[in-house]
Amino acid sequence: MADDKKLVSQITSMEDDFAQWYTDIVKKAELADYSSMRGCIVVRPYAYAIWENIQHIFDGMIKETGHENVAMPIFIPESLLQKEKDHVEGFAPEVAWVTHGGNEKLEERLCVRPTSETLFCEHYAHIVHSWRDLPKKYNQWCSVVRWEKTTRPFLRTREFWWQEGHTIHETEAEARKETLDILDMYEKLCREYLCMPVVKGQKTDKEKFAGAEETYTIEAMMHDGKALQSGTSHYFGDGFARAFGIQFADRNNKLSYVHQTSWGISTRLIGGIIMTHGDDSGLVLPPAIAPIQVVIVPVAMHKEGVLDKAREVADRLKKAGIRVKLDDSDQSPGWKYAEYEMKGVPLRLEIGPRDIEKNSCVLVRRDDRSKTFASLDELETAIPALLRQFADAIYQKAKDNLEKNTVTATTLEEMKAAIADRSRFVKAMWCGDPACEEAIKDQTGMPSRCMPFEQEHISDVCPVCGRPAKKMVVFGIAY
Amino acid sequence: MADDKKLVSQITSMEDDFAQWYTDIVKKAELADYSSMRGCIVVRPYAYAIWENIQHIFDGMIKETGHENVAMPIFIPESLLQKEKDHVEGFAPEVAWVTHGGNEKLEERLCVRPTSETLFCEHYAHIVHSWRDLPKKYNQWCSVVRWEKTTRPFLRTREFWWQEGHTIHETEAEARKETLDILDMYEKLCREYLCMPVVKGQKTDKEKFAGAEETYTIEAMMHDGKALQSGTSHYFGDGFARAFGIQFADRNNKLSYVHQTSWGISTRLIGGIIMTHGDDSGLVLPPAIAPIQVVIVPVAMHKEGVLDKAREVADRLKKAGIRVKLDDSDQSPGWKYAEYEMKGVPLRLEIGPRDIEKNSCVLVRRDDRSKTFASLDELETAIPALLRQFADAIYQKAKDNLEKNTVTATTLEEMKAAIADRSRFVKAMWCGDPACEEAIKDQTGMPSRCMPFEQEHISDVCPVCGRPAKKMVVFGIAY
Repeated sequence: MADDKKLVSQITSMEDDFAQWYTDIVKKAELADYSSMRGCIVVRPYAYAIWENIQHIFDGMIKETGHENVAMPIFIPESLLQKEKDHVEGFAPEVAWVTHGGNEKLEERLCVRPTSETLFCEHYAHIVHSWRDLPKKYNQWCSVVRWEKTTRPFLRTREFWWQEGHTIHETEAEARKETLDILDMYEKLCREYLCMPVVKGQKTDKEKFAGAEETYTIEAMMHDGKALQSGTSHYFGDGFARAFGIQFADRNNKLSYVHQTSWGISTRLIGGIIMTHGDDSGLVLPPAIAPIQVVIVPVAMHKEGVLDKAREVADRLKKAGIRVKLDDSDQSPGWKYAEYEMKGVPLRLEIGPRDIEKNSCVLVRRDDRSKTFASLDELETAIPALLRQFADAIYQKAKDNLEKNTVTATTLEEMKAAIADRSRFVKAMWCGDPACEEAIKDQTGMPSRCMPFEQEHISDVCPVCGRPAKKMVVFGIAY
Repeated sequence: MADDKKLVSQITSMEDDFAQWYTDIVKKAELADYSSMRGCIVVRPYAYAIWENIQHIFDGMIKETGHENVAMPIFIPESLLQKEKDHVEGFAPEVAWVTHGGNEKLEERLCVRPTSETLFCEHYAHIVHSWRDLPKKYNQWCSVVRWEKTTRPFLRTREFWWQEGHTIHETEAEARKETLDILDMYEKLCREYLCMPVVKGQKTDKEKFAGAEETYTIEAMMHDGKALQSGTSHYFGDGFARAFGIQFADRNNKLSYVHQTSWGISTRLIGGIIMTHGDDSGLVLPPAIAPIQVVIVPVAMHKEGVLDKAREVADRLKKAGIRVKLDDSDQSPGWKYAEYEMKGVPLRLEIGPRDIEKNSCVLVRRDDRSKTFASLDELETAIPALLRQFADAIYQKAKDNLEKNTVTATTLEEMKAAIADRSRFVKAMWCGDPACEEAIKDQTGMPSRCMPFEQEHISDVCPVCGRPAKKMVVFGIAY
């Protein structure tokens, strides 16, 4: 186990320096690399496999509910971006501009898409004529570019990978329902598959998406008490439809504007997984998205029969639909233990000559290193059961962190005191005036995260102005 | 059937105007749309579903053989692109340049990736140290940009979607094997899944990829006798490795350069499918990649029991793993027949009150409209069998076209005569001198497509210079 200690000691402890701990994991677990393209990342195979698993799960959810994938152009002509006033104001300052194609200067600048509302709107205006053409529920998986000044792998980079759903509907009610249905799917994805509890709610006007009437969000809490906005869903009303002329003949044969939504989740979820579940030995991956769910480490590998038995077990688990890896490399078992702990593999299966004699093996959980002795005959049931327990345990741990570090406050002083020693979610009442929201941000450093759907009555008045409170808001420092 | 005729009459006949026929199908089958981003396309849901099926098949093949997916940055700094001389000369004239990020002028121009060799090389130089780190077999699915002057949906657009594989190996032999293994997979994808026969061979030096030592290709023949380069695989030797310093300690602990490959297929395969299988009624889709394999059209739909039975059949087929759509819309059966012929759905299942009485239905093949009466009890076996027959038939038809329109020639005059009335593949001998290849192109209009692996001896001498012939080459006009 000396090797183990050596490797672990190469990571900064979470307590000592949370940011450096994060950076260390990204590097040691081989999630991302830098390149000469500053501000962007190379998504390495292990992280990309996590992303593919997330894509597979969510793509299944949206296809099941009638959404279709498309691909829109990577570029948006400047004049097209400018069609919706709020939208262009929000995005123009942070886009990358293409000015030359080959050796020629372009007549009009093109931005590399920061998001694709404008392109979807233009296309919808082409193809929608009658209420019979509605709804259109399109989605695309792609990367987008926003010219960020300070960047951090997965959390904030100049390019990131995401899905952007864009839907248009006959009625306001249907579009509003879509906006919230998607938010529910995002919550389900986080809860059931990523083992991440979230706070579901609505953004204040100040924090909503450029061009949206309403923005809904799921907010997760990281180990350090900071918030990660993990998915957003926007209701646009008919604002974009009017700007882009997306009209249809309705059931009374009158021309109407469609009602529209958009919504997205991105590779920043990978950052969320790191900071929700990771520990000082490295990543801890939820089984549903772990590229390897079980790693088999043969002990005394060169003794007769050990590798054969290990291979037999690996084949059986693969057939049972479990993502398994047998590491039969020449590294020591201790090195392997540390390596797959760093990579967050949920279960380690140790098997050596004595285990084989007893027709058994040892299963070690990544989260608490608890050991289970299992008969080789019952692995197909024992392992899925352990993976479920593992998923429940890491979800519960994250939920405890969220609950323990969510506090209430009724005055600005209480709000400041609540985060004096560390970041927390602070629930406080609000009068609805953006000036008071701004004052809270100025004086405590915390912007609003959302107005949770689950409202509580904490006090009668706004902590800033003392006027009657309208909503309970969660405040917190965010990534 | 009046509706049917009306819709069909909206497509230009292939014989009258092949280019317009192609454009009509792209529009009527709802494959692509234009936007204000000229030279790019919107890939609509039906075409994107075809692409997803192609991706799924090929992604399975490469993962099965140990390849891993990654994501590289979308931008390449100009200095990085310039590191390999031949490569930058090949690509610099046709890239899109980003010069501004937000409101600031960039210190260095960035090109939007036309291909990602340079980024993969930089990353490999970071992560490879020892022979134990090799091979690395990475792939990415993404879009790339090349600033084309004249464009055509799927065949040549400023942005297209593709996979680019980039691998590095310890030895030349291993890298050469990878290059050819991948070419075999491309051929298999085309033959078994897209029902497209191809000619497999090596590009001449003149036609090879910028920076490659050798380029291998699969060339398909379209209805009109023109060639479609459908996939290429490149062997780089250690040229890029030297330019980017990708070195490793070999088994003798000496520093060596890796040997490298890259390879790609793209959404132009969708154009190939249209022009290989389509007819004057629209698309004809190979079952393996058809988004809908069987469309159920209920006849006398509003008679009691018809829709119930149609739904029951649809559920059963879905459970059997068949991609099925029940069209229970209010359109007439005739309209539906034409619609799904346009969309190239391989099989139409007609079911009405009289069929239900007899516990049977009618299955109509898209390619030749042949009808099969099938018992409702045996659909789970009858339909897969018919789909196989359908796939075999359209493959054979394409192969007949390829063989019928491939001719041999021993003189320049014969070459010209061979394509006087229409495009064909012309096999001719070649001395190996690029000047003679150029002369053939100048005088016949045909560039070389490839030097096929299956060589034939057509004559002893080069048709241009009369010197001894070294290789048989296929010439042809290409998309």
